[in-house]
Amino acid sequence: MLYHIRMDVNLPADMDPEERADLLARERAYSQQAQRDGHWPHLWRVAGEFANVSVVDVADHDELHALLSGLPLFPYMDIEVTPLAVHPNKIDQ
Amino acid sequence: MLYHIRMDVNLPADMDPEERADLLARERAYSQQAQRDGHWPHLWRVAGEFANVSVVDVADHDELHALLSGLPLFPYMDIEVTPLAVHPNKIDQ
Amino acid sequence: MLYHIRMDVNLPADMDPEERADLLARERAYSQQAQRDGHWPHLWRVAGEFANVSVVDVADHDELHALLSGLPLFPYMDIEVTPLAVHPNKIDQ
Amino acid sequence: MLYHIRMDVNLPADMDPEERADLLARERAYSQQAQRDGHWPHLWRVAGEFANVSVVDVADHDELHALLSGLPLFPYMDIEVTPLAVHPNKIDQ
Amino acid sequence: MLYHIRMDVNLPADMDPEERADLLARERAYSQQAQRDGHWPHLWRVAGEFANVSVVDVADHDELHALLSGLPLFPYMDIEVTPLAVHPNKIDQ
Amino acid sequence: MLYHIRMDVNLPADMDPEERADLLARERAYSQQAQRDGHWPHLWRVAGEFANVSVVDVADHDELHALLSGLPLFPYMDIEVTPLAVHPNKIDQ
Amino acid sequence: MLYHIRMDVNLPADMDPEERADLLARERAYSQQAQRDGHWPHLWRVAGEFANVSVVDVADHDELHALLSGLPLFPYMDIEVTPLAVHPNKIDQ
Amino acid sequence: MLYHIRMDVNLPADMDPEERADLLARERAYSQQAQRDGHWPHLWRVAGEFANVSVVDVADHDELHALLSGLPLFPYMDIEVTPLAVHPNKIDQ
Amino acid sequence: MLYHIRMDVNLPADMDPEERADLLARERAYSQQAQRDGHWPHLWRVAGEFANVSVVDVADHDELHALLSGLPLFPYMDIEVTPLAVHPNKIDQ
Amino acid sequence: MLYHIRMDVNLPADMDPEERADLLARERAYSQQAQRDGHWPHLWRVAGEFANVSVVDVADHDELHALLSGLPLFPYMDIEVTPLAVHPNKIDQ
Repeated sequence: MLYHIRMDVNLPADMDPEERADLLARERAYSQQAQRDGHWPHLWRVAGEFANVSVVDVADHDELHALLSGLPLFPYMDIEVTPLAVHPNKIDQ
Repeated sequence: MLYHIRMDVNLPADMDPEERADLLARERAYSQQAQRDGHWPHLWRVAGEFANVSVVDVADHDELHALLSGLPLFPYMDIEVTPLAVHPNKIDQ
Repeated sequence: MLYHIRMDVNLPADMDPEERADLLARERAYSQQAQRDGHWPHLWRVAGEFANVSVVDVADHDELHALLSGLPLFPYMDIEVTPLAVHPNKIDQ
Repeated sequence: MLYHIRMDVNLPADMDPEERADLLARERAYSQQAQRDGHWPHLWRVAGEFANVSVVDVADHDELHALLSGLPLFPYMDIEVTPLAVHPNKIDQ
Repeated sequence: MLYHIRMDVNLPADMDPEERADLLARERAYSQQAQRDGHWPHLWRVAGEFANVSVVDVADHDELHALLSGLPLFPYMDIEVTPLAVHPNKIDQ
Repeated sequence: MLYHIRMDVNLPADMDPEERADLLARERAYSQQAQRDGHWPHLWRVAGEFANVSVVDVADHDELHALLSGLPLFPYMDIEVTPLAVHPNKIDQ
Repeated sequence: MLYHIRMDVNLPADMDPEERADLLARERAYSQQAQRDGHWPHLWRVAGEFANVSVVDVADHDELHALLSGLPLFPYMDIEVTPLAVHPNKIDQ
Repeated sequence: MLYHIRMDVNLPADMDPEERADLLARERAYSQQAQRDGHWPHLWRVAGEFANVSVVDVADHDELHALLSGLPLFPYMDIEVTPLAVHPNKIDQ
Repeated sequence: MLYHIRMDVNLPADMDPEERADLLARERAYSQQAQRDGHWPHLWRVAGEFANVSVVDVADHDELHALLSGLPLFPYMDIEVTPLAVHPNKIDQ
Repeated sequence: MLYHIRMDVNLPADMDPEERADLLARERAYSQQAQRDGHWPHLWRVAGEFANVSVVDVADHDELHALLSGLPLFPYMDIEVTPLAVHPNKIDQ
């Protein structure tokens, strides 16, 4: 099932650089594992902002919450979830 | 170039049913042509709302405006445009 | 799967009384059928407003959209959808 | 009497882990006692957010305030209260 | 039980003057009856706006909804309800 | 002259407990003196929030500002002021 | 006593030109009488909008409401009232 | 003096096509005259919306108001004005 | 040229009292000099808030920015600027 | 391709003065290099605020993100991006 997610990241500007680098590296690994598992089919950077627009594909709301709350950046993010249904005008491709 | 678009449709509740059906049929044809042309790679219904989330793929801002302002439903929609860049954590698939 | 829904109804104040009565009767029938089918386990009136807070239980986002967009009052409502997951502090009852 | 409550939790990202664990354990105990007492009939996690949607059942506004302001997480939460009335379309179940 | 209510009235500027006068007269009668019944202890005009701030006193949320939704101006109003508890600093008077 | 006031209190969650207790004690004394002086005829707790709804009665805007800016909690509060006029539907009681 | 007022005018774009001209003429006469009476010491146009910023000087909230609700444009305006106190840094001039 | 202006156009979807065409033609003529007069140095379409971002260059606030309120589309627009100063980082070009 | 300014001050509640007193003294001196120079013709306290409403009179946008950004409290304020034009209903006084 | 950008800067009021001066110097150098490269054709100060309105000219969304996220002040800014298309009323100049 598909969910549209917008994530806005708010890292403190004075965060310790090493802590920051480590956090972003763990976020990267986590995100890429989820992509390889097929749970994160779309991931784009919002141009000009420390934010992304994503589409995730999970079995249900509980799996969605597990995926998102497990993000290393979760404590620093505002997250907005929108459930996506099939659009009647969508063609097969 | 990719743009994230959210469209919210506000049709008058008392619109003439035939006019409405005709309008929606033209919207459908227009949208499906744009999909076949490769300009509208993603189109989802926002579950529970008369709205969609889309990703469109056009050459530049002028082509984007031409595509969106040509929508038969354009006079009835609120449209929000977000330019999308490559995300550094995105893996090749 | 559970979704939290808030619906705010905006009927034109000058709507024809018979049309209004008919619309509300059809809404009532539709809502009660969905309740009998087990798809609308919770339905409360927001005290002081022409609005409700609901929890609906459907198989997926597509079924959710079918249920909500089929409401006779759908063209007159603002709808806000929130997917609900299990809360870790919830006890069995 | 039923009240709909949305609680959004804002814990500092740099909170001491032990203090955080202790706070969450006390919140859990408090919430589960209120559930066993019959005052917190519904409790759901908002999928993807550190937030919950609840329905609480107390005698009056004073008891509501006592229940909510006693939450160990109260100083860290934004709380929104909506009084719930019986909906005329609700069927007996 | 006390509820704080703010009501904002939005009458169409081109409403028929007689219909408007009749509507306001019925609102006046309804409001004054509720005051005489002890259900509407405070009623103030928001200075400079077609709006009021009220405190109503009813048995529960269902009575609140019955009182407010019965207002002749109800279809033309935005209503915001806030449940009021005893304040610990309040002195006996 | 009557003013409707809503005060939302934002104390830092990590405030020193003694400092906090002292601050709240001074607020209590100040508020109760103003009530005894007849300047604070109504004071309610917003159920579920660290906030109050008040009606204060002072000679003019300058006295209002003196009263509110003298509150020990003033540096920690968001305050919203609404001037109240007589409502034409108000009955004598 | 001084009040800061912002008024935003929303006339229907398709209003009958004569009705509109008459309405604006009556507004002008009313406003100028209030200025001559000393009740409207400041009146500025918000550049680029059909709106004004004003300071009015009246005895109390009731007089304020009488003045504003008597404006011929009152049914077409959004009005925001802010009570003004003496600023401690103001010099005598 | 430079002002940044954002204009959002809200034409009724059911406007008479001839009236609409005439209105847009007059807007075009007015806008192009102002450009030729050097008062409207920048004019861009907001991609995907019936809106523009402009920079206008006029002698003072009164001339600004005259220019904007004279727009044939003025009754149908939301206008937001931002005065622009020289930026200290701007290089000569 | 006249500009309407609203300034909201947000001083940290735990600011060193001496630093705070010094800052406010410098603000006072700066503001009173600008008043004596004729650049700050109106200055009112927003009753009940640490905020003011002002009208300033300067030659152009650059002088406005110099005046406001030079305020000792500038780093602690939210500032909202509205350019003021002559109102056609204003009488000579 | 042109993008309209608004940047609002939020530097901590208690930032070390030397760190602040160094940061602003690096911002200045970065901004001026981008201007000399032809990527930042317009840059204005929002009068009265620590903010700017800009138009940048880059090849695509990825270049836009690289330019903006490389700003030394990026961690301290709120950035709003609006893609700009040609306006049909624009004359050649």
